[in-house]
Amino acid sequence: MIVTVRKNSEKQNVERLIQQLTLKGLEVNYSEGEHHIVLGLVGDTTGVDITWIRSFDFVQEVTRVAAPYKKANRQFHPEDTIVNVAGVKIGGHEKIAVIGGPCAVESKEQVLRIAHEVKDAGASLLRGGAYKPRTSPYAFQGLETKGIEYLCEARKQTNLPIVSELMSVDKVEEFEKHVDLVQIGARNMQNFDLLKAAGKMTKPILLKRGLSNTIEEWIMSAEYIMAHGNPNVILCERGIRTFEKYTRNTLDLSVIAIIKQRTHLPIIIDPSHATGDWSLVESVSLAAVAAGADGLMVEVHDQPECALCDGSQSLKPKKFKEMLEKASQIAKVIGREL
Amino acid sequence: MIVTVRKNSEKQNVERLIQQLTLKGLEVNYSEGEHHIVLGLVGDTTGVDITWIRSFDFVQEVTRVAAPYKKANRQFHPEDTIVNVAGVKIGGHEKIAVIGGPCAVESKEQVLRIAHEVKDAGASLLRGGAYKPRTSPYAFQGLETKGIEYLCEARKQTNLPIVSELMSVDKVEEFEKHVDLVQIGARNMQNFDLLKAAGKMTKPILLKRGLSNTIEEWIMSAEYIMAHGNPNVILCERGIRTFEKYTRNTLDLSVIAIIKQRTHLPIIIDPSHATGDWSLVESVSLAAVAAGADGLMVEVHDQPECALCDGSQSLKPKKFKEMLEKASQIAKVIGREL
Amino acid sequence: MIVTVRKNSEKQNVERLIQQLTLKGLEVNYSEGEHHIVLGLVGDTTGVDITWIRSFDFVQEVTRVAAPYKKANRQFHPEDTIVNVAGVKIGGHEKIAVIGGPCAVESKEQVLRIAHEVKDAGASLLRGGAYKPRTSPYAFQGLETKGIEYLCEARKQTNLPIVSELMSVDKVEEFEKHVDLVQIGARNMQNFDLLKAAGKMTKPILLKRGLSNTIEEWIMSAEYIMAHGNPNVILCERGIRTFEKYTRNTLDLSVIAIIKQRTHLPIIIDPSHATGDWSLVESVSLAAVAAGADGLMVEVHDQPECALCDGSQSLKPKKFKEMLEKASQIAKVIGREL
Amino acid sequence: MIVTVRKNSEKQNVERLIQQLTLKGLEVNYSEGEHHIVLGLVGDTTGVDITWIRSFDFVQEVTRVAAPYKKANRQFHPEDTIVNVAGVKIGGHEKIAVIGGPCAVESKEQVLRIAHEVKDAGASLLRGGAYKPRTSPYAFQGLETKGIEYLCEARKQTNLPIVSELMSVDKVEEFEKHVDLVQIGARNMQNFDLLKAAGKMTKPILLKRGLSNTIEEWIMSAEYIMAHGNPNVILCERGIRTFEKYTRNTLDLSVIAIIKQRTHLPIIIDPSHATGDWSLVESVSLAAVAAGADGLMVEVHDQPECALCDGSQSLKPKKFKEMLEKASQIAKVIGREL
Repeated sequence: MIVTVRKNSEKQNVERLIQQLTLKGLEVNYSEGEHHIVLGLVGDTTGVDITWIRSFDFVQEVTRVAAPYKKANRQFHPEDTIVNVAGVKIGGHEKIAVIGGPCAVESKEQVLRIAHEVKDAGASLLRGGAYKPRTSPYAFQGLETKGIEYLCEARKQTNLPIVSELMSVDKVEEFEKHVDLVQIGARNMQNFDLLKAAGKMTKPILLKRGLSNTIEEWIMSAEYIMAHGNPNVILCERGIRTFEKYTRNTLDLSVIAIIKQRTHLPIIIDPSHATGDWSLVESVSLAAVAAGADGLMVEVHDQPECALCDGSQSLKPKKFKEMLEKASQIAKVIGREL
Repeated sequence: MIVTVRKNSEKQNVERLIQQLTLKGLEVNYSEGEHHIVLGLVGDTTGVDITWIRSFDFVQEVTRVAAPYKKANRQFHPEDTIVNVAGVKIGGHEKIAVIGGPCAVESKEQVLRIAHEVKDAGASLLRGGAYKPRTSPYAFQGLETKGIEYLCEARKQTNLPIVSELMSVDKVEEFEKHVDLVQIGARNMQNFDLLKAAGKMTKPILLKRGLSNTIEEWIMSAEYIMAHGNPNVILCERGIRTFEKYTRNTLDLSVIAIIKQRTHLPIIIDPSHATGDWSLVESVSLAAVAAGADGLMVEVHDQPECALCDGSQSLKPKKFKEMLEKASQIAKVIGREL
Repeated sequence: MIVTVRKNSEKQNVERLIQQLTLKGLEVNYSEGEHHIVLGLVGDTTGVDITWIRSFDFVQEVTRVAAPYKKANRQFHPEDTIVNVAGVKIGGHEKIAVIGGPCAVESKEQVLRIAHEVKDAGASLLRGGAYKPRTSPYAFQGLETKGIEYLCEARKQTNLPIVSELMSVDKVEEFEKHVDLVQIGARNMQNFDLLKAAGKMTKPILLKRGLSNTIEEWIMSAEYIMAHGNPNVILCERGIRTFEKYTRNTLDLSVIAIIKQRTHLPIIIDPSHATGDWSLVESVSLAAVAAGADGLMVEVHDQPECALCDGSQSLKPKKFKEMLEKASQIAKVIGREL
Repeated sequence: MIVTVRKNSEKQNVERLIQQLTLKGLEVNYSEGEHHIVLGLVGDTTGVDITWIRSFDFVQEVTRVAAPYKKANRQFHPEDTIVNVAGVKIGGHEKIAVIGGPCAVESKEQVLRIAHEVKDAGASLLRGGAYKPRTSPYAFQGLETKGIEYLCEARKQTNLPIVSELMSVDKVEEFEKHVDLVQIGARNMQNFDLLKAAGKMTKPILLKRGLSNTIEEWIMSAEYIMAHGNPNVILCERGIRTFEKYTRNTLDLSVIAIIKQRTHLPIIIDPSHATGDWSLVESVSLAAVAAGADGLMVEVHDQPECALCDGSQSLKPKKFKEMLEKASQIAKVIGREL
């Protein structure tokens, strides 16, 4: 960490800051320039609060050199983490995972029907929302516990592990017991109490990027889960919010290479929420595979116009299958397998 | 709600959609143009899901004409809502409320000392974080229950009602019992389970705008709280996230007039989080009062450089007092009082 | 276009608006709802100004149904436009074009050396900036006319058509004479006088998307060029500006499918400016090809650390060649050729 | 400027960089930490290109400590610049300037009528667009030279200096001759050839902030004009582009205090383009005055529904006058005068 101090600052104040930094176990390198004094902090700075240093009024600028995360940091963990989701491995250099299923569980029949379809198309996990985060209190909020039950039934029939979103700390027990991959949604990416609770679960966590969160904040949320005891975190990009109006969100595919450089965690892409439009899903899904994603999570519905939420972004099973066939060929080009 | 249908769509499909809309209690006005058919939906459309209509592949565009919120809507509630926070009234055309205090409660002495200072400066409520949402798991997370205790002690000594942030549904009881104005933070603006829980509390709620949430989404989150039974919601703008790097966030003051046009709820401004820089706080605070804000929430710390979080955005008590004096004069110009 | 009028509006005012719309050659369908009157406008609305209609105070909402562009609109021109750049065809379903070269022309030797390298690697066009848009007046502004000369020399030696950025209307003649593909940069995407001038050129235009422009505005800028007489426009996505700090810009690859649905123009991707980091270029370039891009424009420099601008985003020739080999295999999967 | 180098870098490479920096006249302070080497650059770094340093692959991070601008920098020019616009002074601590007038000049009668109205209301300058930047090539593009003529006639009748937008270098002569305050629009904020041309004019320049430009880029564009010879630059904030849909742009009023801290230039606010809605103009205009703006530029039209552009954001003269009366009282509170 580099602290730039105004040259005309009172010496005793700067010394007081240096003393406090030293008490935190840091070594402080002091060097004077024409207009500024530069303090180089050496040691573990992950626990040092940048805004605290900035609150000294003689400090002009503070720059972090080392990343603020440790457990997620590839520097200290060079090997790829491969997360085992009830037998399906996500991450590493070989297999690319495919998660398919409806946005929301609407009925037992619906989820069973679609589960068989996505399995037949080549998916290795089944997704379905039982608790739904909806902008409006008047919109369908999910089947809740019934929804989890139907997903379990679908898993029994298809052997596909199930993925579902956990929205509240008071449902942790239910998810720990029944769900194979526990999703933390974009709107809860910085619900820190939920992250802490997820850190105490034994099930792997699928952590979506928030609507306007930086990559660093996203990794810090993974770090929360890992620091509280759960090393099995999979990151999921689902588009960020920008000024663009033709798509629901703006999908940022550069995150794939960045996440792989900076962390050892698997990263998957959700093209459905990213675009909000089924007719764009194939194009960006193939792009995600080519860019090196470790998986895709795609909304599939056999009757999109009857879906209780987000039907307009769901692929029909036939289209889903065709897309996976193309994705599979692209995977081969980069030495991987779908 | 206006639904635009492609002209070459199959008639029976369009009729099926009309039928379904009619079953929801809506009247459908049908009119044909050169290239499009336009369906005008008449009736209560707040429960109609736009994405559901879009999922019909012959639908080109859906436009909401009526607002998706009812309880927060000024159209159905022309009078200003005035929220009573333990005797202090927020909202209406007269008084402008001032909330002051430290970002975080750090010790009993600290909060007592600052509580007396902010009271002396003219604040009518005391803020202080006991549970702190921090980006890093390694940063100070707040004194938790101890912090609430110290705030209660400060209230006892100063008679200032207390404001503190609720982060999780499992702390609702504690806040219901001890806190006068319950804050929902920006990062939890769409934590829908927390909103539902807040809707069942008897204490008024201070709802901050999310980092990248539209004004409509923000009102919808207020609607969640109101729809679950709590009519006492105060909105708080604290800046949104943009590309700008000189400020922590970009403060959007146009929301004041917009919120007053569209809703009947009070709106206050947090200049401290909005700018992240104490030297900008006075300028934007005076602006907020001139723009018609119903209140200010300002971070105050007597030793900013010792603050455990966000010291760089805290005003010292003396500066806070001077600012309130200017704000008070501006309030008079627009016929209000600080 | 759909105009929603408040129900309680004075009849004669609404009639006056209808009359004015009729005078513009539009047919107006009138229908009354419970709270609103809906006017459906039938006819060519591309010349109708939405803000003009909004300025009538009884108008609540105006929604465009038909796109505001005609010449770029795929609806009226279903066939892909294939642009011929001095013999190299860009667009259509077969060939994917590759443009390579340095950010800036720095010397005759530099551009000749790199020109041979990019040709050898498989590029079909050579890029190089002679006039450089730089944020700082103190930064290298380009070799200007000398730079164009060196590019011409490189074209002579390699037979690669040349691409360079036009920044001002007073250089149109020079570019018309010497440059094969005339680039309009992101910062000039809405420099409307420059667009009009480009519309009068006979050379094809490469139109970059602005830093914060919507896709619709970008197409409208292409429409400017086309409406002034030049049908040969190639669109180029180079990333948009968001809050993210790990990349220079956020590359939006969903535009590829969108541009192909809505327009008949070719679309290419610039991964270098999009990411600002050479180590991310391969990942997003392969993604762009998989997503269906008609071309790539990549910065290549043999001594990035000596580059006078943007060295940190330039690939070395060897890396560029290896990337093109992978891209070529991905192109085959989707039935195309690099 | 601080350069952070990876510890394991080859010594001779780092030495080569240090040598090159020294050749640029900089002193380099070298200090070694546990994981990094830190180079502190001392001297004038405004001409040093950050991306050049980043292109050395052993460089991890480069941080600018000193601002990249000199002529606009308050550090080197502590006194406020007061710009004289044909006798009207803008800037300093006393007078707040008011610019009023129509978005576009539509006819001689229109501009004369409105000119008298805005003068009567208290404005000290008249605005009017003769050349109009329009997103659509099919929209009204302005009366061009005729428009400038009508503005001159209005100036003759009212003695109000005139403000109009210059869009292209080939109109510089016309503006130099006739216009008192030459506006560079938001879309041309980084049209560097236009900035250079403006730098050679003798008339003062009103530089609007671009739709998605940082404050630093904005100041750098002012620096372009100043570095080319014209010290008379007035900055104008007109809102930035965000995800918000209820307003045309998001007005950033924190820029007022920031511009005053970092530069010595006057800053005015355009509430009309910022909000796009006349009903929000008063609220944010009063806010701008309270925040310390040196002026307001407001669109005024006596028949907004007949305006050829942006009628929906124009105030009627009566409303404009009432607003200025309130603004005048707020100005007094902060020791200024309208």
